[in-house]
Order: sequence, then structure tokens, then C-alpha cells
Amino acid sequence: MADFTLTKGGAYDDLLTLCKGAPARLSGSANAARAVEITAAMLKGAGADTVYLQPCMVPHWVRGPKEEAYYTFAGKKVPLHVCALGGSVATPRTGITAPVIEVRSFEELDRLGKKGIQGRIVFLNYPMNQTLVNTFAAYGDAVRYRVLGPSQAAKYGAVGFVLRTLSTSLNDYPHTGTTHYDTTLPRIPAFAVSTNDAEELSRNLRMKMVVTLFMKASCRTLPDTVSYNVIGEIRGNEHPDEIVTVGGHLDSWDLAEGAQDDGAGIVQSIQVIRTLHALGIRPARTVRAVMFMNEENGGRGGEAYAARAATDGLQYIFGLESDNGGFTPRGFSIGAEGARFKEFTDWGTLFQPYGVYEWHVGGGGADVEPLVRVKAVVGEILPDSQRYFDFHHAGNDLFENVNRRELLLGAVNMTALIYLVSKYGI
Amino acid sequence: MADFTLTKGGAYDDLLTLCKGAPARLSGSANAARAVEITAAMLKGAGADTVYLQPCMVPHWVRGPKEEAYYTFAGKKVPLHVCALGGSVATPRTGITAPVIEVRSFEELDRLGKKGIQGRIVFLNYPMNQTLVNTFAAYGDAVRYRVLGPSQAAKYGAVGFVLRTLSTSLNDYPHTGTTHYDTTLPRIPAFAVSTNDAEELSRNLRMKMVVTLFMKASCRTLPDTVSYNVIGEIRGNEHPDEIVTVGGHLDSWDLAEGAQDDGAGIVQSIQVIRTLHALGIRPARTVRAVMFMNEENGGRGGEAYAARAATDGLQYIFGLESDNGGFTPRGFSIGAEGARFKEFTDWGTLFQPYGVYEWHVGGGGADVEPLVRVKAVVGEILPDSQRYFDFHHAGNDLFENVNRRELLLGAVNMTALIYLVSKYGI
Repeated sequence: MADFTLTKGGAYDDLLTLCKGAPARLSGSANAARAVEITAAMLKGAGADTVYLQPCMVPHWVRGPKEEAYYTFAGKKVPLHVCALGGSVATPRTGITAPVIEVRSFEELDRLGKKGIQGRIVFLNYPMNQTLVNTFAAYGDAVRYRVLGPSQAAKYGAVGFVLRTLSTSLNDYPHTGTTHYDTTLPRIPAFAVSTNDAEELSRNLRMKMVVTLFMKASCRTLPDTVSYNVIGEIRGNEHPDEIVTVGGHLDSWDLAEGAQDDGAGIVQSIQVIRTLHALGIRPARTVRAVMFMNEENGGRGGEAYAARAATDGLQYIFGLESDNGGFTPRGFSIGAEGARFKEFTDWGTLFQPYGVYEWHVGGGGADVEPLVRVKAVVGEILPDSQRYFDFHHAGNDLFENVNRRELLLGAVNMTALIYLVSKYGI
Repeated sequence: MADFTLTKGGAYDDLLTLCKGAPARLSGSANAARAVEITAAMLKGAGADTVYLQPCMVPHWVRGPKEEAYYTFAGKKVPLHVCALGGSVATPRTGITAPVIEVRSFEELDRLGKKGIQGRIVFLNYPMNQTLVNTFAAYGDAVRYRVLGPSQAAKYGAVGFVLRTLSTSLNDYPHTGTTHYDTTLPRIPAFAVSTNDAEELSRNLRMKMVVTLFMKASCRTLPDTVSYNVIGEIRGNEHPDEIVTVGGHLDSWDLAEGAQDDGAGIVQSIQVIRTLHALGIRPARTVRAVMFMNEENGGRGGEAYAARAATDGLQYIFGLESDNGGFTPRGFSIGAEGARFKEFTDWGTLFQPYGVYEWHVGGGGADVEPLVRVKAVVGEILPDSQRYFDFHHAGNDLFENVNRRELLLGAVNMTALIYLVSKYGI
């Protein structure tokens, strides 16, 4: 199976097709609809018995024209590399100009309170923690500022919010991503600013050379619209009613091509089907590749899939997601403990020749996690994390930044695990 | 130590300085001399007690103006992306035009013999084996065609040699690297051609649409010249005469910046010194960072270091090299067996939080390997290998293709191992 995937696997070509044919696949967009068509065709081509669409209602947020932000330094306008966070409201049509104040944490925001914050733009400058070897841990630590920051600032009367972008690199790319407004508070426009610009703005603020910031955005939230999960399966020949799910998410943020996040997981999941089909392997249990819609700003696809699973009379035994990038695989996270976890680690030595040494008790990806409600075991593949937050939700998440061999090695290990579970059950 | 390296480590900045200040550091070149100066200064800045140069005579091959190669297809000239292999002789000044014949292996060359080969240019089209998960194994399998191919072809009267370049990707970069002429046979000009061009040339040959190839190069081998290993050390405070060596090689091929090969190993080795010094760690045994000269086309620096080691009365206990790229570290290869190997693996769990799970009995890098003669244990760091042969010896081995966190994580693990050996001995 591994040799086929590494030499004849089509995942890299599929990724090119998806990224160039349907970049910026944000839920509700025309490109998301195109991605549904493209991947349905890919699943058929890969040899799925059955390919179908599963409808779900999704949010429909649009960024509008490119955002603007700048400050004035020594009489000169200094433009910032910014983007609105996903779900942000617009500024007034002429933008906002307001005094800017830098804070490093929610604690500092609380200390400043209404007196320090009222009428200002809050610049929240919290760098990701570089000492955490797993960058997802650093993301987990910092992401609260993106998700909760705008409302925390609005609580004290802020009129705008600018986040030091969540990136492990110093460069000019702002990264978008969901923010959640507390509905009891005013909704203020929320931006991310690139790490380079954040460093410079901070220096200039310390020198008291910057007083006000300008920000302008035209984002809008439109009514929910219908979209789809795309599902392709190979029916099991012994236990067809036991479902082994493998998937990634089909939607992506709108600033680039969603190559690592999560085109990689999509084409790897299709590759599982292709490899099984091409080698004439008829699994004992039904293997289903699912392209989940709307992971990024709603999770509606994962919810729709689990809701259907609760009522269709089938048995969902395992759900594996790939949503951590198409980098060299290093391990799996499995949502099981004790003897059930050991069923997985007993296979461990089979995976070592393919670079997988690590098995962690943990969760699945966001889209398969709801399957826990129908008693499925969930899991996710853990690729090397060092480069992920260079690209995540940013303008450089492009096909060209995915390595073919790394991507295919992920598919090799996913195929192996899905094959084992489909053969032996859990 | 890890936190310091990951947050305040200067290895990435050093790599920028080295790559932009002294790219194309082939032995004997002005840039190699500049690299000696740059890294000597870096070692002083990093806090080495003593920094000195160790002379060695090195080969001095120069490529000359960019090579040319083309064929004619349907009346149109099709230029090829080529480079001369390191050490290649020149063509006549007006180039060579000769019938071209494709072979896939030495066995095929032998079968064709003088009758099939005489007067022709041999196009050796052997793709790297994609099924080998460790790409260094695939390189080890294929590299004989680069090293021995020209003379194997000359044996049967070939007038030129063109190798499908040693790369795991399909793209337009030819990769150089040493070839060895059998001195009893005519020396014929030897090129690498990019994988894309190799595929196309092969197709066109199968269709019998290509008959002759043109190749032109002006390479020359000048007299040997003096160069230097650069050495910086922190003297041990308990066993100063026991030497723990960590290094990479300072020379690089001439087509790019030698960023992964082996600027990474150089700046990681300097980082070992910097981290120990900055944290006020005085090692029990002397830690020496060595920037070896001439790994690429002679190995003279490694030989000179080992020759000195055999006579200076000091005890060389360990030599660790980083020459497999600045990618995420996954393990170490250690040239020891049994109880001695176990001394290393007993430290294994200390390294797992930093991503190192694999310990292999194997060799050291090319530069530290000669230290076996003075009874040192040698080893090398094993980073993830998937991307290495995208860049190795090619025009895209640039600073921009090194990831900061991956590079620093390598330095973290090297520092830890050097510290442990310097503290506990072997």
C-alpha cells in the first residue's frame, strides 16, 4: 500500500487541482461550491462505490475589499499588513481613527479598565510561545486572544481591536481566523496585524511616536446558505453497516488556497480511497472519506454528519481526521484510553518504518469530534508541527508550500490505520 | 538550554549572514575564504574561549561560465537545465554534438557495450527510488551513477555523460556533486540534467524524435590551494584534554548558498557554543565546534582534523556532525554498539520532548568519521529527510528554504547531546 501511494498516489496532483481550481473556499462562497464539485469528481475517479452530498446550512461571511490600517510616524503614513478576523464587523465607511493602546494580556486589559481603554483601539501584542516544541500547544495558548479579544476590549469601551497575528515566524503575513463576539457587548472591528508590523508598532509606541491608528474594513455577514459535505465510500464486504470515517475539511479561509489547511487533509482522505481501490482491497467494514464543510467558521459540516450518524441506524466505529497540515507524519492522537488505546498502540511497530513513533491519548479533529456522541472512537494524524503556523489562515497557504513526499507519507499512514481498523474493528 | 536556544538562539540570523555573505563557498574560492573569516568571528561572538584556523590543502575546481546543453526537436532547439558535475572536465571550446543514447542502469550500459556506446553521449536516466521512506537510502542507492557513471560510460567509448539529476522532486533544478574519474580511462564531460528535462528527453527519445545532443562546459581544475578548518572551543574545567567535537562543513557547492548543505550544520554547531556560554555552563570536557572545510569534493578538512588528533596528545572521545539539513530533528545515528550504544539510548527519554525518538547504530558524518581512527565515537543528527533532496547541491539551496524553528530544534538536540557527553563522558 505504501509503495503504491508513494509512487502512484495522486494526492499531490489533486491538491494542485483543488488549490488552483477552488482557492479561498470559505463557506458560502462560489469557490466552496466549486470545491464540492471538484472533490465529488475526484472521489468518483478515485474509485469510491458511492459518492453523495450531505447538505448543511453554513454561515456566509464576506471580507469585502482589502482592509486598510495605518499610523502616522514622524509625519509619514506607515501602512500595516492587516486582515479582518473572520466574522469581524465592518468599520464605518470612512474608517475609524482612534488613539491606540498596547496591551500584552487580558490581565493588563483588566487593570487598565474603562479608564484606560474607553474610546481607544486595543493592540493586543501577545507573541506565540516559542519554547513550546509542539506549535499547536503555543496556538492553544494564544488563540484565546483572537477568539475572545475583541469582546474583552469592547467590555471596556474599545472602538477597535488589532491582534498581533498568530504566527511562529516574523514576516509580513497577517493570519485570519474566527473571532466570537459576546452578543451582550458592542461588536467592534477586529484585525490581525503581521508579526513584523506588530514589533515595529510596539517599538514606536514605546518611544511615544505613535498616537492614533486608522482602520477600515467592509466585512459583512450574509444570511446562512446551503452547502454540503462531500462523501465517498467503499462498502465493506463483511460488516457494511460499520462505518470507518476518514476526512479533512473542504472549506478554507479566503486569503489564499487553503493548501495546508486543509487541502492536504482532503486529498489525503481521497488518497485512502484511491489506494484501497487501486490495489483491489475490499475492506471488511465500510470506509468513508468525508470532505467536511465549514470547519473554519462554524463546524456545521461535522455537526450535520454526526446528526445523521445518530439516526441512520449504522454503527460509526472510528473517525480519523487530517487537519494539522500535510507535513511529515510523526504520530496519531486517539480519543481512547486503557485497553482501547492499546488496541492502537499494539499496531505501533507497523508504523515506525513510515516515521510514526508517537501515539497520544487525545482528541480527534474538530470535524470528527462530534462522532463521540455516537460512541465512535475519534483520532487525528499528527504531522510535524514546526512550519504549520507559518501558513495557517494566511496569504501564503499555497500549493507551492506543500511538499509532495511529506503529503504522501501522511496518506500512507492514514491509509494503513484506516485499513487496520476496517479489517479488525475496534 | 532548549528555551534559550528556541527564543534567543542566533543560528537563524547567523545562517542569513553566512548564506548572503558567503554563498557558493566551494573549496578554494574567494567565498570559501570569506566564510572562514565570517565563522571565525561568529565563534568569537558566540563566546568560544579560543578560536583558531587549522590549515589544509584543498582541491580547486571552477565551473566557469554557465554550461549549455540542448537538442533539436521537430526543428526547434530545446535547451536543457544542466550543470556540470563537480570535477568534470570541460568540453572542447565549441562544445560537443553527438548521438545520445538513454540507459537506465550500469547493467544496460554493459549490455550495449562498445558497439552501442562508442562515440555517443550517454544519458543515464535512473530515478531515485520513491518507495524508500528515508531519502538518504534512495540517494545511497542512486549516487553511484553520479560518482562512477562518466568513467563507466567512457569505458565503452562514450564522449559525454548526462545524468538524470539526483532529486526526489520533478522540477527544473539540476543538482551538482562530485564525480570520480577512473584515471586509466578518458575523462569525458559530465552533466546533471533536471528531472523535468530528463522525463521529456526520455519521452522524445522513445518517440525517436531526438538524435543528437549538444553539450558545452568550461570547467577547470586549478592547483590545490590552502584553506582552513575553523575551530572554536570552550575549555573543559575537569578534563580539558578530553575533546567533544561538534561540527558541520563550511564549504558548499557553487550553485546556491549552501543553506541546508551545510550552512545549517555550521550555525547549529556555533549555537552549541553560544548556548553553553550564554547560560554560563562550563563543560567538564572541552567542547569544540569545528567548521570543516572541503567535505564536498575532497574531505581534506576532516582528514586534517583527524591527522592532528592522532598526534596532539589529546583524547578525542566524541564527534557529532550535522550534515543532513536543518530540518526537524528525529534521531541520532551513533557509531557504537552494545553497551556503548546503550549509554546513548539511556538518555533517550530526555530527548523525546524535543522530537527525537530514533537512535540508530550507524556512522557519523563524513567529516567526523576519520576520528574513528583515534578511537572517538562518532555520530550524526538525523533530521527529517523528506525535503533534503529537493535542495541538495542545487540552485535552490537558499536561506529562504530553511525554517527557523526546524533549524533551532536541531541545535537544541545537538546542544543537549554534546552537553551530556561533555558532562558524563562515554
